[in-house]
Amino acid sequence: MNKAPHSGSSVLKSVSIVGGSGYVGGEVLRLLLFHPKVKVAQVTSASQVGRFVHATHPNLRSVTDLQYCHPETLVPVDILFLCQSHGDSAKKIEDYAQKANWIIDCSADFRLRRTEDYLTWYQAIHPNPDWLNRFVYGLPERHRSELRQAVYASGVGCNATAVILAIAPLADAGLLEKVVADVKVGSSEAGAKPSEGSHHPERSHCVRSFMPTGHRHQSEIRQELGTAFTLHFSVTSVELVRGVLATAHCFLKEKMEERDLWKLYRRAYGEEPFIRLVKQKTGIFRYPEPKLLAGSNFCDIGFEIDTASNRLVVLSALDNLMKGAAGSAVQCMNLMNGWDEATSLTFPGLHPI
Amino acid sequence: MNKAPHSGSSVLKSVSIVGGSGYVGGEVLRLLLFHPKVKVAQVTSASQVGRFVHATHPNLRSVTDLQYCHPETLVPVDILFLCQSHGDSAKKIEDYAQKANWIIDCSADFRLRRTEDYLTWYQAIHPNPDWLNRFVYGLPERHRSELRQAVYASGVGCNATAVILAIAPLADAGLLEKVVADVKVGSSEAGAKPSEGSHHPERSHCVRSFMPTGHRHQSEIRQELGTAFTLHFSVTSVELVRGVLATAHCFLKEKMEERDLWKLYRRAYGEEPFIRLVKQKTGIFRYPEPKLLAGSNFCDIGFEIDTASNRLVVLSALDNLMKGAAGSAVQCMNLMNGWDEATSLTFPGLHPI
Amino acid sequence: MNKAPHSGSSVLKSVSIVGGSGYVGGEVLRLLLFHPKVKVAQVTSASQVGRFVHATHPNLRSVTDLQYCHPETLVPVDILFLCQSHGDSAKKIEDYAQKANWIIDCSADFRLRRTEDYLTWYQAIHPNPDWLNRFVYGLPERHRSELRQAVYASGVGCNATAVILAIAPLADAGLLEKVVADVKVGSSEAGAKPSEGSHHPERSHCVRSFMPTGHRHQSEIRQELGTAFTLHFSVTSVELVRGVLATAHCFLKEKMEERDLWKLYRRAYGEEPFIRLVKQKTGIFRYPEPKLLAGSNFCDIGFEIDTASNRLVVLSALDNLMKGAAGSAVQCMNLMNGWDEATSLTFPGLHPI
Amino acid sequence: MNKAPHSGSSVLKSVSIVGGSGYVGGEVLRLLLFHPKVKVAQVTSASQVGRFVHATHPNLRSVTDLQYCHPETLVPVDILFLCQSHGDSAKKIEDYAQKANWIIDCSADFRLRRTEDYLTWYQAIHPNPDWLNRFVYGLPERHRSELRQAVYASGVGCNATAVILAIAPLADAGLLEKVVADVKVGSSEAGAKPSEGSHHPERSHCVRSFMPTGHRHQSEIRQELGTAFTLHFSVTSVELVRGVLATAHCFLKEKMEERDLWKLYRRAYGEEPFIRLVKQKTGIFRYPEPKLLAGSNFCDIGFEIDTASNRLVVLSALDNLMKGAAGSAVQCMNLMNGWDEATSLTFPGLHPI
Repeated sequence: MNKAPHSGSSVLKSVSIVGGSGYVGGEVLRLLLFHPKVKVAQVTSASQVGRFVHATHPNLRSVTDLQYCHPETLVPVDILFLCQSHGDSAKKIEDYAQKANWIIDCSADFRLRRTEDYLTWYQAIHPNPDWLNRFVYGLPERHRSELRQAVYASGVGCNATAVILAIAPLADAGLLEKVVADVKVGSSEAGAKPSEGSHHPERSHCVRSFMPTGHRHQSEIRQELGTAFTLHFSVTSVELVRGVLATAHCFLKEKMEERDLWKLYRRAYGEEPFIRLVKQKTGIFRYPEPKLLAGSNFCDIGFEIDTASNRLVVLSALDNLMKGAAGSAVQCMNLMNGWDEATSLTFPGLHPI
Repeated sequence: MNKAPHSGSSVLKSVSIVGGSGYVGGEVLRLLLFHPKVKVAQVTSASQVGRFVHATHPNLRSVTDLQYCHPETLVPVDILFLCQSHGDSAKKIEDYAQKANWIIDCSADFRLRRTEDYLTWYQAIHPNPDWLNRFVYGLPERHRSELRQAVYASGVGCNATAVILAIAPLADAGLLEKVVADVKVGSSEAGAKPSEGSHHPERSHCVRSFMPTGHRHQSEIRQELGTAFTLHFSVTSVELVRGVLATAHCFLKEKMEERDLWKLYRRAYGEEPFIRLVKQKTGIFRYPEPKLLAGSNFCDIGFEIDTASNRLVVLSALDNLMKGAAGSAVQCMNLMNGWDEATSLTFPGLHPI
Repeated sequence: MNKAPHSGSSVLKSVSIVGGSGYVGGEVLRLLLFHPKVKVAQVTSASQVGRFVHATHPNLRSVTDLQYCHPETLVPVDILFLCQSHGDSAKKIEDYAQKANWIIDCSADFRLRRTEDYLTWYQAIHPNPDWLNRFVYGLPERHRSELRQAVYASGVGCNATAVILAIAPLADAGLLEKVVADVKVGSSEAGAKPSEGSHHPERSHCVRSFMPTGHRHQSEIRQELGTAFTLHFSVTSVELVRGVLATAHCFLKEKMEERDLWKLYRRAYGEEPFIRLVKQKTGIFRYPEPKLLAGSNFCDIGFEIDTASNRLVVLSALDNLMKGAAGSAVQCMNLMNGWDEATSLTFPGLHPI
Repeated sequence: MNKAPHSGSSVLKSVSIVGGSGYVGGEVLRLLLFHPKVKVAQVTSASQVGRFVHATHPNLRSVTDLQYCHPETLVPVDILFLCQSHGDSAKKIEDYAQKANWIIDCSADFRLRRTEDYLTWYQAIHPNPDWLNRFVYGLPERHRSELRQAVYASGVGCNATAVILAIAPLADAGLLEKVVADVKVGSSEAGAKPSEGSHHPERSHCVRSFMPTGHRHQSEIRQELGTAFTLHFSVTSVELVRGVLATAHCFLKEKMEERDLWKLYRRAYGEEPFIRLVKQKTGIFRYPEPKLLAGSNFCDIGFEIDTASNRLVVLSALDNLMKGAAGSAVQCMNLMNGWDEATSLTFPGLHPI
């Protein structure tokens, strides 16, 4: 068996994954198996008890012999990743808190701070509203110093992350008046469960207006970036498994020159380990391209000014299962434990792909 | 509404489709709606009663306002197409025969002549074995004269059709010793019902060894072409919605020159309206290519001799929903009614696609 | 050979295609070969002289035995389709006008009415500016009555057509304030010539910000719909060969209710043979989907109101080679000759695909 | 900049890449940049001099600031990777040998041992035939002990590797009588240069019989596995960027039971770090699947017995740019230098993808 390089060390922190058979759980597991500071203790799945984790995550064949255990058999560990369906973490958060010092919840259950937002966007009364403020929104680029002190971090919405990172420098500088965020997404966003909409003959090569209006992730964008600008948000499904491209059509309060924009974005992101500014004058890689980021934790950001008007088009790309989910979650774990933020996250993506 | 050109004529034959909500039923319906000799009376679907047929076949929006009716409400017509799951036609064939003079069954229920073959390949005892010999195997290229006299025609297996048409001239001439048929198929073969295997993130871009051995369609090939040669049959799923490419690696009893092969294939297929010999020395369209046949009723056939050995590679391509199912079924209807065989089947396919 | 049904008639109009080896030329040719009122005389291509037209358009194998001839050998005909690269028609329009009574030019050379627009958007001085006003913009939904009298019609820009048809009812009613048109396109838009950007390993599954700003087609939109609203236009390349989806984020001068929008769009398009309003509450076909339109001449249009704001999202889908090019061109020919507008254009598209 | 973890060490071996702008060069570079024992000195490209390597390999943005240098400026290093077009290495091998102690040539120039094979399969007289025997065929699974002593290693053919690894245990045991190897391949095999055949509208979703006969790689298979069995080899292009699936239809001299085959394959590959036996009774991951191996160095191997005959279907999958090229090359470097064979090669691939 092809062991991950770190296994066997004795000073590792123990970590378990609750709900590990989905796509996000699989990515968290992959990252943890190659992480030099942790050892995976358990991976739970009510439906897969006793099966090898590589039965559902075939890329992990020969990497690990772990088997799924029942959620009821969860034992205490240092760190817990919750990768369940929306709603499941919120109900049992008290129990989970008994089991681990650090919790990172990849669902939407602790992303929002206000109970009324759950009512509005998830049509549900949050079962543990007093826990909402114990969680830090798990986007390191926005909450790094809090995360360094945190024991509880939420996951992030993949589409929200793409839009937040695209326009945050403009929003923070008070420059935004209106944003039309037209987001293109791959099929893995909808998770591992087959549906009529994911049936290959129908989903293949579609350009499907999945949610032209009303997508939940705008609540996260609002929470992070405030209400000083109007936000319009649409999501279209395209032929791709992993990946998000956000095309943010931005209308600014004042005209910006290209070099000022460069300055603004470099100041915001120049030290970020996982944000790259991508903007070239020629060639086919002029702007961010999600397919190049499959498996990587990068969010690439570029922009173009529409010289005929005051529109600024900001483009951001990421892998929805990485920077948009498991990658950011592991980055949070690294920060929360004082480890190098990029640990286990340096895979640069493939080209061609 | 954009009416099909023939509607309104008074001397049309009436035709109904039983089980019309699947992919084959949808194609049969599309072809019939543009057929100048027939009028569609009913389309049944137990699960879709009352919905417009274009709710499941969105390409028929504005082409027809037909609504699904319950199978129990089926009224007598001239011609009946059965497009149900395997097993359903066989059980109720007596009833259907009361409803229509001509029946074309697209399922596998009446393709084979011997009850023991159903036991072997479909693991089921055929409920109406005495009906097996009343049906003609619905491949016009093999049974044209019988079909002209027939009132009952079976459908054809899409992969079987690709292989049969590829090697029939060799088999008929007694030249074949052994064939390894390596067949590549698209996702629509598996029908309209979602499954774990059809889930887009998994099915997308797969090169999946679907059935390396044991595929049922070899029983049809055997029945049509006899047992004078050994047949090896494997099916691999590739990224494609519609289409089959059969690569038939043929080992011959005697060495054949290229011009003799041309002669053999031209003699066999020179007059066929839906078979084209495709073999060019240069360019990217040298051999049959299934994607170019989407929506068309053509089966393209080409070949190449391995000069270093006695292998002959015969290639055949078709659209599994057309020549491999609905197209051949409508071609049978045309023959059975004495109409021009190509009626409603002249769409040549698209390029590029 | 599988003859197209109409061939052999004696009262057909003769038609030739100049520059027939490209994708648009191939589609025009396919449509004309099945058109009951015309006979194709010549197809020219400087680079393919003497080759069969099916060598470059393999879907036309067995449909026609036509061979490419040299542009210099063009003989007089009734109708001429010009399918050359931008710039070529404009230079020689006087010559072409000597050869035919009716000319339909699929390039951009006669789409715009003002020479300064050619300077701005095509960086070129138009060589025959006095000809610009002799051409009618070839979009039947906007210029039907002019086209019925016309002898010269221009082609249409595919992306422009998608946007124009999406928002024209709003623009005509004076309701529009601002539109952000975010257009997703397939690879056939760029034509038949390979390039670094069309290389499969790079183009496959890309979500490429092809022209976030500065796309030429906005000049056509402006010309057709006026300057009473601000227009922002971006084009993103997605994994698809044929197809355009325009997501038009519309900001209106006044709030509109859903039923008023239905009324507006039905009034505008209720009688149009090739426009369908697509908007369903449930299922996976709720909105226009370009892949379902491959090969068809339909433009499907739908919309959704963002109830949280005054945004209206209008969606339109079409096949860039059909309604966005060859299909509209043939529709123009039908109108210009007094034939049924839908002749040869009734193919409804395929499902699944 | 997101530095690779090893950079800065002082006891690293220096390594340069000649011809680094192609796909194989890019993969070698990616692997070396994350390799803890080496430091990349130069990457040459005659056409890209002065440009950043990430201009052509955009996944390496922020990973490295290396720029392409001219081949003439190549300085001596410890290790040289040659990633040029076929023919280029052979001409200048004397020069390269002056520059480095270890050479790994990824082209075909030193894969074959007999000059007549170059004449037969590459239609060229080898310019340095006396060098042919100084190279070891760079497939660790076949030549590990030689590679440990070697200073010169050749690359491997990607399709050849898939077939060799699939059937070697059978060939070595003298069990093979005849093999029909039907190989399905992605578009990156053809390299980074656009062509008519790689143009997206044409290459997309094709199932193209690229080389039904006559593919060069069979010479490598022959050389490795001998002539005791007859070999038939066909290559079909499918929709995929990276990946090879070999379906080896094997005809054996004697009947084999499943458990004997397991025993044979486990004995052959049980200790191999990059070969996994994949064969499950149920589910969608029953057999090797190339898309799951993108970026990984694994070759997955499975099989199925056709119980109705003496056919054995052996399936093998790999990433043509990794195990089929750059991955095996780096694995060779590791062996040649006495390093852990798996260094820098542990990425397990992604799921879903």
